[in-house]
This record gives sequence, structure tokens and C-alpha cells, in this order.
Amino acid sequence: VATLSDVAARAGVDVSTVSRVLRADPRQAVRPETRLRILQAADELDYQPDVIARSLRTGRAMTVALVVPDLDNIGFTAVVRGVQRAAQEQGYAVLIAELRDGGDSRAVEDIAGRVDGLLVASAHTDEPWLARLATRLPVVLVNRRARGFPGAVIVDDEAGTALAVSHLVELGHRGIAHIAGDLATDTGQRRLDGFRTALRSHKLRARAEWNVSGDYTEAGGRRAVTELLAGKERPTAIFAANLVSGLGAIAGLREHGCEVPDDMSVVVMDEHPLAAVTVPPLTTVSMPLEEMGAAAMRMVIESLGGSAASELCVDTQPALIVRGSTKPVAKGS
Amino acid sequence: VATLSDVAARAGVDVSTVSRVLRADPRQAVRPETRLRILQAADELDYQPDVIARSLRTGRAMTVALVVPDLDNIGFTAVVRGVQRAAQEQGYAVLIAELRDGGDSRAVEDIAGRVDGLLVASAHTDEPWLARLATRLPVVLVNRRARGFPGAVIVDDEAGTALAVSHLVELGHRGIAHIAGDLATDTGQRRLDGFRTALRSHKLRARAEWNVSGDYTEAGGRRAVTELLAGKERPTAIFAANLVSGLGAIAGLREHGCEVPDDMSVVVMDEHPLAAVTVPPLTTVSMPLEEMGAAAMRMVIESLGGSAASELCVDTQPALIVRGSTKPVAKGS
Repeated sequence: VATLSDVAARAGVDVSTVSRVLRADPRQAVRPETRLRILQAADELDYQPDVIARSLRTGRAMTVALVVPDLDNIGFTAVVRGVQRAAQEQGYAVLIAELRDGGDSRAVEDIAGRVDGLLVASAHTDEPWLARLATRLPVVLVNRRARGFPGAVIVDDEAGTALAVSHLVELGHRGIAHIAGDLATDTGQRRLDGFRTALRSHKLRARAEWNVSGDYTEAGGRRAVTELLAGKERPTAIFAANLVSGLGAIAGLREHGCEVPDDMSVVVMDEHPLAAVTVPPLTTVSMPLEEMGAAAMRMVIESLGGSAASELCVDTQPALIVRGSTKPVAKGS
Repeated sequence: VATLSDVAARAGVDVSTVSRVLRADPRQAVRPETRLRILQAADELDYQPDVIARSLRTGRAMTVALVVPDLDNIGFTAVVRGVQRAAQEQGYAVLIAELRDGGDSRAVEDIAGRVDGLLVASAHTDEPWLARLATRLPVVLVNRRARGFPGAVIVDDEAGTALAVSHLVELGHRGIAHIAGDLATDTGQRRLDGFRTALRSHKLRARAEWNVSGDYTEAGGRRAVTELLAGKERPTAIFAANLVSGLGAIAGLREHGCEVPDDMSVVVMDEHPLAAVTVPPLTTVSMPLEEMGAAAMRMVIESLGGSAASELCVDTQPALIVRGSTKPVAKGS
């Protein structure tokens, strides 16, 4: 069996350089041509993966689990991508576990037995399974905060919400409704708070009846517009707390004969390539979700090394992407 | 440190039962109440994860990589879910690697050093990285076939395509176009073949100018309709080879003043919750993608045990889900 030294000798470099390349040690960069030479030497010598040896040395499984509430929610794609990227840079594998709200947590508890740490992007942080696992493993929350969990990475939801509201105000809208997320979640609450703050900063009044929950789901967004349109006064614009509830809202509006953007402007939180091809194409707020995922992965690995976990807000700012679901308010609205 | 025997003694069961539960051994089911008692005992004794010990015993990393071309393509969600489910049942972790067409394969080659096997759902199977890795690891292709790779799990694309075409024919459509996938891929080719066969079975002629490539992407679908609408004769219906190219097509049609379903019916391959809230809601063909992902995972684990890999077609049949993007052909069309 070939060893690291054998590979080093063949590639004409020292063992530590080989180790950096083959063990995906991120501490120091290796020049591409050196890297290639090492990979070729390893290949020629049939050097075997050393994840087991590494696990023995470090006492770690070299695996972290990411718990998401719903793989179908396209808002999580970028988070998964960021987590994967950072994991790979540090030689870790990521196990993704889907745990729907109120779902059977057994799968996640099983998984916990084979990982070094846990990234949690599921909505409800007060569940017993999470408390149980947190006594055994480092936990980092992804875009949510909860008492008892100091490790958390969030994005600036308030800034993103302010961008959305300012865009609508600049288009002349004064009656702006919010299809909120699940208000039992920290992130749903933060976006609602951000919405109220943004309205105040534009000297607009937040009407209670124009804050309706869309639960972050398609069906929730559709239900929310039924409620909004049943009210005495109609808003002229909607800010939806995520992409899928915004799509649900647009479908619901259309069922009520209300066309977007002619009769109602809609701007949504979260960006995704699909937003460019929906009818109408969506005006979105792009949040740094990939950066957040990567930061969360780095934080959980640091916790393994003994660093105290703390809260981190990703400093990349949100960006507004204007497409076809928003337009200037109609005269007389 | 608590051992398996300690846990067994506390739970009042034998060691092999504890092993089945804690090591996620899938060979035999354990009754839920016994399972619960074992998990409680393990928890009380602070029994540590044994993935490292297990890796040593088996000589495996207990990890499999899944290579997908694009995490943003919502068609892969169900595949990922199926792979994860089967992996968990057998105590494996899944590392997901995104490798866009023509992208840098270094990330995947790095990953290969720390996994036991590879599931490949990326489109192009003639890439040098895949040939290189296949000499070292068992490889199972997911919904594609390629020379030199006997291990593959596919779904019945021909049956799915036939469902879509029959639905359109029943609505009175005779001029049916196909927005094909990437024809350099096996799956793109299979859907095109299925389309031609289905037309023939309905005594309809396949016109070359009504087969245009949509590359499985939003942008491709949009480009494809521009081509279709520029022809001398217009089709009255379109079958798109996947969901995102279908959405791109609908957006493109609208830009050309052609409304779906009034001026053109569109049915797409692949089902996703978003299909219910797009405007219009999409008529889809639901393929057994989750079953396919699970079967692929099981196949790669079996290969590790020495079973010869072979081709498997998932026997769950596709289903047509009729929504708002298709309607009877207009009189006089």
C-alpha cells in the first residue's frame, strides 16, 4: 500500500505538501501544477483514501449533518451549495437530512450518531430532538436564533426587507402588505419587524390587517391573498417573505382576477434562477444565502476545535433584482 | 466509555439487537418499542457514535458521493431525497457535489478520495474525470446509460413521454412539438425517441422542425419557442422534456403574445410542488425519481459488497397530473 511518503517521493515534493493536497487541508494553498503532479503520482501509485486513517487520528467522523425542513423549498438550494463548498474545502462530508415540521425526528437522531456536528436550518428550534442532540454535538443554527444555541449564522433580513419596501415606495406604492413567514420562527419574526421598521422610515402606517401569514409555503401564500383581498381596503403592493409564498400569492391573485403587476405589485425575498422565467418574472431580493451556508459550516468545524460558538451576521449585503412583478402604482389607486 | 454490551445490558436485549439499531444495520427490523428502549439506554450511558469503529471494521468510509449538474434544477430534489433516504437506512452518509457542465472537476476528484462509491446524475458521461474515478470506485449512473458503466438506474422515460403525448392527443391536438433535452445525453435522446414513438402510435407525423432543443434549462426553453414560432406552421401544443425548460417556454411564448393554454398547450416532464402555483399551473408527468435515487444508492452499496452492477429500470409507472397549462385545441387550429 502506497503511503504519503511514497507519493511525495514520486511527485518530488515534501510530505506536508502532499498532505495538504490529498487531505484537503485548507491552511495553505498549493500551486496548481504542483497539485496536478501530486494527484498524478497518487493515481499512479494507487494511493488509497485516507479518510479512515484521518478519522482515527482526529477522532472525528469528518461528517456534518445539515437539517433542512423541506428540500422542495428552492430557497434552500443556495444554502446547501454554500455548506457543501465550505465542507469540501475542509475535507468534510455533508449529510443532508430533511425534517418537515412536526415530522418524525428519528431519522435525524439516527444520523446524529455518525456526525461530528449539526447545522440546523429547520424552522422550529424548540423541539426536544434538538435539545437532546445539542448535549452531544456542537450545533450551529442557520438563519435563525434560539435561546440556548449561541452558534448561529444569519443574514441581514432587515436590510433585505428595507430594499424591497423602498423599491415599492419609489414606484409610488403607499398601501403595502406583507405576506409573512411562519411567525413562530425567528426569521419570520425578523422579516416582519424589518417590514414595520421600513414602513415607519417611509412615514407609512403598518396596518394589522395587511400583515398576513403565508407560512413560507405556496398554499400559505395563496390563502394569504384571499384574506388580503377580502378586506375593506386593498393594498397595491405585496412584499412576500419568501419566493414560494410569493408564487402562491401570484397564483391566488390571478384566481381572484387580480393580475400582477397591473393590479398588484409583488416583490419576494430570496433569489433563484426560476424567478426569471415565472409569469411574470419576479422582482426579488437576493440574500447572501450561499455565504451564510459556508460560514455556518466553518463555524461548526471551528467549534469542534474548541472555539466558542457565537452569532455571526454575514456581511455581504442583500441586492434588489428588478423584474416584471412590480411596476409603478396605477393612477387613482 | 460505554460499549455496545453496556447498552444491551441496560436495555435488556442482546448485543446484536443493539448493533442493528445503533449501527443502522438494515438486515432485520427491530420493534419500535425495543428500538426506543435501546436509544434511551444509549443516551443515558452516553454511548458514543461508532462510525469510526465501523469504518475500521468494514474498511469503508461509509460515505457515497452524489454528483449532480445543478442544484438549482428542481428536477433533482426528488432524486436527492431518495438517495438520502436509502443511505440513511443503510447507515451511509451522502456527500453532494455540484458539477456544472464543463465545470472544474477538481472538486469531484477531491471528494472521490473520501467516499466508497459514486452516484452520477450529471449529464455528460464521457468526461475524463469519470473514467479516472471509475477505475478506483464503483460508479452507478442515475437516469442515464453510458458505455463502460454497467451500473445504472433509470426510469421509464418512454412511458412518461407516451402519457404526455396521449393527453395532448385526447385534447384534440395534432400539431405537437417537442422541446427536447440535451441530445448529447442519454436521457434527452430517450425522451425524443419516446416522443417519436408516441406520435407514430397516434398516426401523427414527427416534423423535424418541431423538435428543438431546450437544453433542460430555462434559457433553452425560451430560445426553443422563438425557433418554433418562427416556423411556417405553428404547433398547437408542446411537450417539454423537463420542468424548467417548460417554464422557460411559457415565459418565451408570453413574450411573443402567445398565451398558455389558450393559444398553446404545454405539458412538461417532472413533477414538483411549484408546478401547482406557476401561472398557469403546469400539467406534468410525475416520474418515480425518488424511487430511482433510492435504488441507485442501494445498488452502489451492493457493488461494495461485490455484487456485479447492472442496469435497473424502476418499475413504478409515471403518472399524468393535469393542471392548467393544457386544454382542448381551439376550433380551426
